[in-house]
Amino acid sequence: MVGYIDDKEDLRRRLARIEGQVRGVDRMVEEERYCIDVLTQIGAIQAALDRVALALIDDHTRHCVVEAEGGEREEKVDELLAALGRFVGR
Amino acid sequence: MVGYIDDKEDLRRRLARIEGQVRGVDRMVEEERYCIDVLTQIGAIQAALDRVALALIDDHTRHCVVEAEGGEREEKVDELLAALGRFVGR
Amino acid sequence: MVGYIDDKEDLRRRLARIEGQVRGVDRMVEEERYCIDVLTQIGAIQAALDRVALALIDDHTRHCVVEAEGGEREEKVDELLAALGRFVGR
Amino acid sequence: MVGYIDDKEDLRRRLARIEGQVRGVDRMVEEERYCIDVLTQIGAIQAALDRVALALIDDHTRHCVVEAEGGEREEKVDELLAALGRFVGR
Repeated sequence: MVGYIDDKEDLRRRLARIEGQVRGVDRMVEEERYCIDVLTQIGAIQAALDRVALALIDDHTRHCVVEAEGGEREEKVDELLAALGRFVGR
Repeated sequence: MVGYIDDKEDLRRRLARIEGQVRGVDRMVEEERYCIDVLTQIGAIQAALDRVALALIDDHTRHCVVEAEGGEREEKVDELLAALGRFVGR
Repeated sequence: MVGYIDDKEDLRRRLARIEGQVRGVDRMVEEERYCIDVLTQIGAIQAALDRVALALIDDHTRHCVVEAEGGEREEKVDELLAALGRFVGR
Repeated sequence: MVGYIDDKEDLRRRLARIEGQVRGVDRMVEEERYCIDVLTQIGAIQAALDRVALALIDDHTRHCVVEAEGGEREEKVDELLAALGRFVGR
């Protein structure tokens, strides 16, 4: 069982909104809107994706890490840290 | 005239691919896939969006900034730096 | 007891190296070195700080979160996520 | 001539402060302070370094890029974008 089942509908609503935002940026490029305005929108999508990522990290820590035992827990923490390394690192 | 007209089709192709990636993440959540795998996919979308942002910053610098004169150029650089502040800053 | 006691000397060695890198950047500015080269060095310091942050997050997750019980564990996870929000978010 | 000469003393003051902050983090680790508090301080250093990087990018764009001509300008923009790629990308 994955940890985020409770939040599944909330996550899917957010992802649907993000998909719409990406479509909106495509429309802005099609209409040749000013590049700084396009950049601002991309920044908003990045922030929304960061929040989805944090929600998944939250669930993983509260459920997968905390509920696992012994060697399996080590493995879950290793996976979490490897994933974080891609988000925190530059 | 905006700077990115030459790359418009390339930018739109990338945005269409990103939209598909967001839909793919939604499907992963629907199927309750393992949260670390979902995180990895979100990281890939963020990296793709960073590349689109850099392409826009590139165009803005080469066209809008360099082609503007005097006070207007100051303004373009101010806008660029404000936009960068949102991408570089945490 | 904090989790990072085992790695204390390693963390301190890394921080001493980072301190030296910051001093090196100051010297570059003093000598009016080319700004792109200074930027490259700042990027290296940021990456080194990210690695120290990840080492602390690693310890916090393995020790403080996993060893805490019940309500205290909730609190440790809350603190971890709040801290991550500042590193992951923009 | 580099662009940041005017801001040289301001940059050096900021770097001296950052060096002091790194030393402060080392002291926190030595005293075995709570890892979340150490993380918060590292986040503050990262933000301060981001501001120094943005100040250098600002100078590079206003001076090196704008004042260069023809092929040299291309080169300056290429260097700027390569440097940004390391700050924006993950």
